[in-house]
Amino acid sequence: MEKHQRRLWFRELQSSGEETFYACRAVLYHGRSRYQQIDIVETEMHGRVLALDGVVQSAQLDEFIYHEVLVHPAMWSHPAPQSVLIIGGGEGATLREVCRHPDVRRIVMVEIDGELVEICRRLLPQWHQGAFDDPRVQLIIGDGRAFVENTTEKFDVAVLDLSDPIEDSPAALLFTKEFYDRVAKCLTPMGCVSVQGECISPQKLVAHARIVNTLKQVFPVVQPCSYSLHSFHRPDAHIVASKNPQWSVSAVVERARSMDMPLRYLSVPMVEKLFVVPPYLEEAYELHCEPLTDTAHQLTCEDLM
Amino acid sequence: MEKHQRRLWFRELQSSGEETFYACRAVLYHGRSRYQQIDIVETEMHGRVLALDGVVQSAQLDEFIYHEVLVHPAMWSHPAPQSVLIIGGGEGATLREVCRHPDVRRIVMVEIDGELVEICRRLLPQWHQGAFDDPRVQLIIGDGRAFVENTTEKFDVAVLDLSDPIEDSPAALLFTKEFYDRVAKCLTPMGCVSVQGECISPQKLVAHARIVNTLKQVFPVVQPCSYSLHSFHRPDAHIVASKNPQWSVSAVVERARSMDMPLRYLSVPMVEKLFVVPPYLEEAYELHCEPLTDTAHQLTCEDLM
Amino acid sequence: MEKHQRRLWFRELQSSGEETFYACRAVLYHGRSRYQQIDIVETEMHGRVLALDGVVQSAQLDEFIYHEVLVHPAMWSHPAPQSVLIIGGGEGATLREVCRHPDVRRIVMVEIDGELVEICRRLLPQWHQGAFDDPRVQLIIGDGRAFVENTTEKFDVAVLDLSDPIEDSPAALLFTKEFYDRVAKCLTPMGCVSVQGECISPQKLVAHARIVNTLKQVFPVVQPCSYSLHSFHRPDAHIVASKNPQWSVSAVVERARSMDMPLRYLSVPMVEKLFVVPPYLEEAYELHCEPLTDTAHQLTCEDLM
Amino acid sequence: MEKHQRRLWFRELQSSGEETFYACRAVLYHGRSRYQQIDIVETEMHGRVLALDGVVQSAQLDEFIYHEVLVHPAMWSHPAPQSVLIIGGGEGATLREVCRHPDVRRIVMVEIDGELVEICRRLLPQWHQGAFDDPRVQLIIGDGRAFVENTTEKFDVAVLDLSDPIEDSPAALLFTKEFYDRVAKCLTPMGCVSVQGECISPQKLVAHARIVNTLKQVFPVVQPCSYSLHSFHRPDAHIVASKNPQWSVSAVVERARSMDMPLRYLSVPMVEKLFVVPPYLEEAYELHCEPLTDTAHQLTCEDLM
Repeated sequence: MEKHQRRLWFRELQSSGEETFYACRAVLYHGRSRYQQIDIVETEMHGRVLALDGVVQSAQLDEFIYHEVLVHPAMWSHPAPQSVLIIGGGEGATLREVCRHPDVRRIVMVEIDGELVEICRRLLPQWHQGAFDDPRVQLIIGDGRAFVENTTEKFDVAVLDLSDPIEDSPAALLFTKEFYDRVAKCLTPMGCVSVQGECISPQKLVAHARIVNTLKQVFPVVQPCSYSLHSFHRPDAHIVASKNPQWSVSAVVERARSMDMPLRYLSVPMVEKLFVVPPYLEEAYELHCEPLTDTAHQLTCEDLM
Repeated sequence: MEKHQRRLWFRELQSSGEETFYACRAVLYHGRSRYQQIDIVETEMHGRVLALDGVVQSAQLDEFIYHEVLVHPAMWSHPAPQSVLIIGGGEGATLREVCRHPDVRRIVMVEIDGELVEICRRLLPQWHQGAFDDPRVQLIIGDGRAFVENTTEKFDVAVLDLSDPIEDSPAALLFTKEFYDRVAKCLTPMGCVSVQGECISPQKLVAHARIVNTLKQVFPVVQPCSYSLHSFHRPDAHIVASKNPQWSVSAVVERARSMDMPLRYLSVPMVEKLFVVPPYLEEAYELHCEPLTDTAHQLTCEDLM
Repeated sequence: MEKHQRRLWFRELQSSGEETFYACRAVLYHGRSRYQQIDIVETEMHGRVLALDGVVQSAQLDEFIYHEVLVHPAMWSHPAPQSVLIIGGGEGATLREVCRHPDVRRIVMVEIDGELVEICRRLLPQWHQGAFDDPRVQLIIGDGRAFVENTTEKFDVAVLDLSDPIEDSPAALLFTKEFYDRVAKCLTPMGCVSVQGECISPQKLVAHARIVNTLKQVFPVVQPCSYSLHSFHRPDAHIVASKNPQWSVSAVVERARSMDMPLRYLSVPMVEKLFVVPPYLEEAYELHCEPLTDTAHQLTCEDLM
Repeated sequence: MEKHQRRLWFRELQSSGEETFYACRAVLYHGRSRYQQIDIVETEMHGRVLALDGVVQSAQLDEFIYHEVLVHPAMWSHPAPQSVLIIGGGEGATLREVCRHPDVRRIVMVEIDGELVEICRRLLPQWHQGAFDDPRVQLIIGDGRAFVENTTEKFDVAVLDLSDPIEDSPAALLFTKEFYDRVAKCLTPMGCVSVQGECISPQKLVAHARIVNTLKQVFPVVQPCSYSLHSFHRPDAHIVASKNPQWSVSAVVERARSMDMPLRYLSVPMVEKLFVVPPYLEEAYELHCEPLTDTAHQLTCEDLM
């Protein structure tokens, strides 16, 4: 693309006085669903990009990192997961990664925004790769919180693939202690949950630290898994939380080794190092320890972006 | 800072159709030295920021990560370094980290841009923290390449703290095989070098892969050390290359453990995981293996940014 | 200035989804007074620029157009003005133009923001050209509305050089019928007032039309004077309103001709055409006829920018 | 449109360090024809906008001003025009205005970019309003310069509706003395030409002044017609040049009055004042008098934008 063709730009606002402009080759979707602003653009640098309410959710060239780290460490944290609950993840890439586990028999995906799913099925084929058609999958268009509060089903693994928990976003009540309590009740005794865990840079780590501390009030084991995406422009972490107090890195590594999946990011040595965090982040866990609750759950934009 | 005060923005261009705008509270320096455009601005998100030719070099809130990873793994790669050569690093933060090693007796820093050093001494005190006044330090304002070609001195460790090797930049000839040959000649038999190693995202990994492969033509051991800075907006890696074929991670870890330095990023467990890279990057080393040379050294902007 | 030096940008927000970025050679002032955000930057295209609350007020290369049109048609609308009231106009350029009228004996300038005046005296010498030191001038730092409500003095001409009347701005209550009533009381029987009259483009003409209609409730003659500044990026108009029902264009032209001032914008033929407006604007005066009042005076950002 | 929906922006570069960002509701076209980059976007402020090579050509809400001033003063400059040549004007709005003259019998429109015409016919119906289907119109897809060099036909009026004459643009050789010589040969003895005449602000008047002076080498009468569009963000002028040395404003006004067309911008009083320019522009005609020629015709971006 020559420079003089760079006329269309997608603009991502960060709360703290930072903006990223992405030159677009094409605009594939620009509209609002009932729940959120949806944009799918073909960027010059990251390939196709999905943004919700203006925040980039995943990009063609590096979404594999996000989704491998979100799904597999949790799957390997359980000795033999057969049933998986996904909340959110409208693109279908989280579903795609879960489907790669052949022993899984049942996958329930609860996504609030049915229009988003339809748009992603049509415009993001690399993301889902047909996973929505896997016979093990049940797709429920509905509120994830209501689902976990009402279901009697138990799952071995839950994956919470949610957008930022800003007030008024669909995700706002899906990062609280009360919600995690309910999620824990939906899990089998060795069950675990994987959570999109926000930014871990020294500049913006309050939301991450508070999510970790909230999970610690519910689960005996809480392990951040750091990663970094060019399309997110910052270091991030997902978080694995397990009901199994005997959870160990070595068991996770052993499961990863024995499954021997052909992944592009998570080799066995990468898994061995995945759960280590730097001292500045350990300190942050001490400093920002107030849990998020339903009545005091708000993270501001300033905390998140 | 209230939103309506966000009037002044520093703009960082990426070659591939991406731009970052940083809201500035103040502009501390905006001018040209003999060698480059120098900007020092107080950003809302990252604190004080130094940019050269429009590219952010380091930021107040996370420069410690960059500099710890650039300096200490190299220092720990040598059993007992006493003399250190720094090329570039005008901010003084690389010097600061080297000075924290009490057994070092001599530090030669060669920086081409004397005006840059003067400006940084005045405006970036957190970076250098007085290191320029350490009696072990000799500061030479001059060309790093000429220095290594002419010096007869030997160093245990060399740290190449350079800006991007774009054509016409001061750093252009400091990333080639010919230059690394000369650097190797300046090193003692167990000597090693640390190199700012560029971006490692799937989007932009050609420059990194070619630098790694160039170093491999000169050094028996070449080890990337990945890290991610919010102020760089992407995953990066420095690279340690050692003349010692017996170099081992475990020896580095052992040195880190025994020195027990109070670092904010590099704890012992972080060092253990520092040299692991994901499979997609291993693949890139196979694909982009052409070394950079003096006569064919050019990396384009497109490769780098 | 070479392109790669364009790192600092001043950003002007328009309410309706438009933003202008000005490359800056230097930032001369960036701060808040008690009343407003003040920025003075050296732009590449327009020279030095003053912005208040992020909105460009005047620029070195074309401020002469703004100030000639604001001052002289009003001065020529009175047969022999001797006393002039200026409200606002902190830069001093309106004052400068008034001072060019040798028969004027007394000029009272009421500006609410004393810090702004001090900053402009120091940094905008081309604007005031020493006019603050003219012995005929009395500068009052205070609220323009309070001044006209309390003074017993009468003036031949009043010039209201105000920023946009957005809610909460210092100018908010200086565009209402009640205020204009008071201004009219401060004028001698043949007196007239000149008002900064906002944008007249088909895109944004509501504010202008309503100001014209508000003035018409108070003055028998209301005449828009259209002009266009590159630094305002749109067509605008000032408005002359006179208490003299015999006001005529030909009398204004005659005064202009006889004074024969060496102006750069307002030649005699330019004055002849100054008061003509296009049919689409005449229509707007019919459509947007609701006057601005103290209790219902609000113009939104959307109306103005 | 709520602010958080403002994600897509069209970006217009000015050469001298100024950029305008337009929030887009939709992107209707984004591609390249054989000759140029074509963008049609739905902006929040100006309605639908056409840009060629990134430069806004016309906007839904104010194109009427541009096209009325480009066409009618030229049409009224001839006592009874029956044949009209249009070069450029792919949108069809110039054609639309010409078609409003009932006595015109023949209109030849020569536009180099056939794809542009097709796209505009489909996406800009307000612009052409069906004018392409007027039986008096002959559309020729071809080079305007070649046409005037080869045709033996004579026209009463020529309208040159061209984009900026930057090097390498399709318009580059359509602003030179040699070209105007040829245009003059295509005109009947009382014939006249109307030229898009660029910016007239003090900041950017060199291109305009040189075009005026180039026309003066060919035509005895050359008259700028100033106007200002919000979507052009600056004062501009078209230029009427006539072969009739008896051309007079009063005759133009008389024709305008007798035709009594229901225009939105050009009332009779507006026409009376249309040809007056301010002193600073008169001065510019003295200063920047070098004509544009085929061999030295180049205007740089810096001159134009």
